[in-house]
Amino acid sequence: MQTVTDQIKASMAGSSWIRKMFEKGMELKRQHGAEAVCDFSLGNPDVPPPAKTKAVLEAMASEAVKPLGLGYCPNAGIPAVREAIAAYLARQQQSPVSAGNVVMTVGAAGALVSFFRAVVAPGDEVICPSPYFVEYGSYCGHFGGVLKPVPSIADDGFRPDVAAIEAAITPKTRALLVNSPNNPTGCIYSEEDMRRLASVVDKVNAARGDEGRPLFLLSDEPYRAFAYDGATVPPVLPLTPYAVVLGSFSKTLSLAGERIGYVAVSPQMPDGATLVNAVTLTNRTLGFVNAPVIGQRLAAALLDETADLDVYDRRRKLMAKVLTDAGVDFTMPRGAFYFFPKAPGGDDLAFVDALQDELVLAVPGRGFGMAGFVRLSCSVDEKIIARSADGFKRAVAKLKA
Amino acid sequence: MQTVTDQIKASMAGSSWIRKMFEKGMELKRQHGAEAVCDFSLGNPDVPPPAKTKAVLEAMASEAVKPLGLGYCPNAGIPAVREAIAAYLARQQQSPVSAGNVVMTVGAAGALVSFFRAVVAPGDEVICPSPYFVEYGSYCGHFGGVLKPVPSIADDGFRPDVAAIEAAITPKTRALLVNSPNNPTGCIYSEEDMRRLASVVDKVNAARGDEGRPLFLLSDEPYRAFAYDGATVPPVLPLTPYAVVLGSFSKTLSLAGERIGYVAVSPQMPDGATLVNAVTLTNRTLGFVNAPVIGQRLAAALLDETADLDVYDRRRKLMAKVLTDAGVDFTMPRGAFYFFPKAPGGDDLAFVDALQDELVLAVPGRGFGMAGFVRLSCSVDEKIIARSADGFKRAVAKLKA
Repeated sequence: MQTVTDQIKASMAGSSWIRKMFEKGMELKRQHGAEAVCDFSLGNPDVPPPAKTKAVLEAMASEAVKPLGLGYCPNAGIPAVREAIAAYLARQQQSPVSAGNVVMTVGAAGALVSFFRAVVAPGDEVICPSPYFVEYGSYCGHFGGVLKPVPSIADDGFRPDVAAIEAAITPKTRALLVNSPNNPTGCIYSEEDMRRLASVVDKVNAARGDEGRPLFLLSDEPYRAFAYDGATVPPVLPLTPYAVVLGSFSKTLSLAGERIGYVAVSPQMPDGATLVNAVTLTNRTLGFVNAPVIGQRLAAALLDETADLDVYDRRRKLMAKVLTDAGVDFTMPRGAFYFFPKAPGGDDLAFVDALQDELVLAVPGRGFGMAGFVRLSCSVDEKIIARSADGFKRAVAKLKA
Repeated sequence: MQTVTDQIKASMAGSSWIRKMFEKGMELKRQHGAEAVCDFSLGNPDVPPPAKTKAVLEAMASEAVKPLGLGYCPNAGIPAVREAIAAYLARQQQSPVSAGNVVMTVGAAGALVSFFRAVVAPGDEVICPSPYFVEYGSYCGHFGGVLKPVPSIADDGFRPDVAAIEAAITPKTRALLVNSPNNPTGCIYSEEDMRRLASVVDKVNAARGDEGRPLFLLSDEPYRAFAYDGATVPPVLPLTPYAVVLGSFSKTLSLAGERIGYVAVSPQMPDGATLVNAVTLTNRTLGFVNAPVIGQRLAAALLDETADLDVYDRRRKLMAKVLTDAGVDFTMPRGAFYFFPKAPGGDDLAFVDALQDELVLAVPGRGFGMAGFVRLSCSVDEKIIARSADGFKRAVAKLKA
């Protein structure tokens, strides 16, 4: 019988790029041994969590066995945790964020889905610069939303094309969704580009009027702490009253599996309290109920810590050297931990195949809405990056032959 | 501006019964002190987690700070945890469940939502006996599903009305959703009733044919371990190949806030692998990504343990005495930790109000789809139950006056 809906069946077929890479990788590792394969396909932060994590978890163990020690917390999060995160965001975002502006969520993914559930009606649109994290389409699509990717300026470091974004806005557009530092390009959006996007949002909202449905500026920023060469990631909340930050501690604290993130709504947003209440409701009714309590407490206790991010910078420099030596054309990422180089010859699938022949795993750019490039994730040891050098050279040579 | 969709706005207004109770409770506690209020409104398991939880968490602390110690796991769960849960379910369900039949989820709520996303198309129906856990409506409603409650037989201990359920099935019905032991009634569905429901499912599926979309028998069983007076909860997986179990450790291990549950698809289901893959996909794309890894490991390490469930039985007996002494008409619950007594005079709101005047908090039955009753949760200390006795008597006296 037909157990699954047609839509989900299509989704299962459509998600096959990353799945294919994963399965191909498993197969290659079985054949050649895990050590022989240079796997740049996954973004699972492998740098250990901060050392303090151990003491925090141990201390939590005694509290956990008290009555309600691991019980439900309010749907928006543990009050003390919300306050701690609000104070942290107030500093980071240079905005008077308070606990009432924050909802703790099951990762940034849970934050996005809960947020979209609250604001997206069937047929509504969400605009994002491409290439983009491909799950965005599902996140709003669950509720009838439609993702409209707008190509970034590949020749200018994958800056967002603000004019094209503005031109893509229709009365049905509910959000501009940006992700800076960007997965997959590593681009950090400049303060000027962010200001221009915020101006577009303000202009649209002024035209829609007090009775209209606003356009939100959503900033998905799990990689905020990953900025190199002295780059800074400009705060978003001060730019427009309709700004919303969605973040997580998955990458900064290397606790991606424990699923801790948050939504923070601008304290300046008119009727922002309704939106926060709505996200608290959808966070509950979507089955998240509350962000995992152990992870919430861990994150709050580790706000002054990060995993050793210098490791990522060293890998970045090494990967840049490997690509340069192989004659691959790429933009040096200033943030996150990905490279998005051009496929020699222009065919991302051909490049991915040629790399696979060398036991090097990459994901084709079409998996991120931009063919002709590939994504490499540097969440692997420097030894593996170094070891991939010859494979890159041979793969490039083959494609240029 | 109108930040939130009309549907979610309606949902916010609709969820106001439990919210009102919660807010009223907060207000009463502020006015009279938390000690003075007997709060039977919430189902947050307050019996401490098993003592072993402490040692397990401490041991985990050393592992957590290794690379990937808290990293993403496969979307369906940590392989060793899936295997442990499968072995546990194989014993409990008397069915050859293997890891491939199981997806670890963010609580039973996350299990239900991920499952509905995989099988419910807009306009599809889900039938459940009422009274019922009111969030079921949202869980399938997010994707255009419609919940169709069918009243249980209140005069016969809230047994499901199998004939009425069968009569309610249409070509659009995708699932019969049962919850035994039941929230809010405490009813444990008999093996015979479960067999009759399974026969209905088999008959419908035979008629729909190989190319049709099946009717599933969903068993939501977070309270399976809560059975008293020697009662047993019959296993569901052997009853029909289209059986699916959705469970959690929130109540049994008192770790509701850590959000650990699972979906287990019958090993006999034709093309069950597609369904498991679909739920794995929706679990990811709905933003859960994977069930929290600390909680997964905790649950797997504590499968032979439970919180002290005898406490709940003692409370049950005490609450029964309190209600009997007050002249309240009720069915003795054989499972879970709720009472669903009749409102004296028949008006649940009037009874809830009269109880509030006595600083006793209950939830009106209409919040569970059945007016004329109230729900009392025994996840509170015996002292509080004892202390409520006079309040119940006075409230009943007032309504009978």
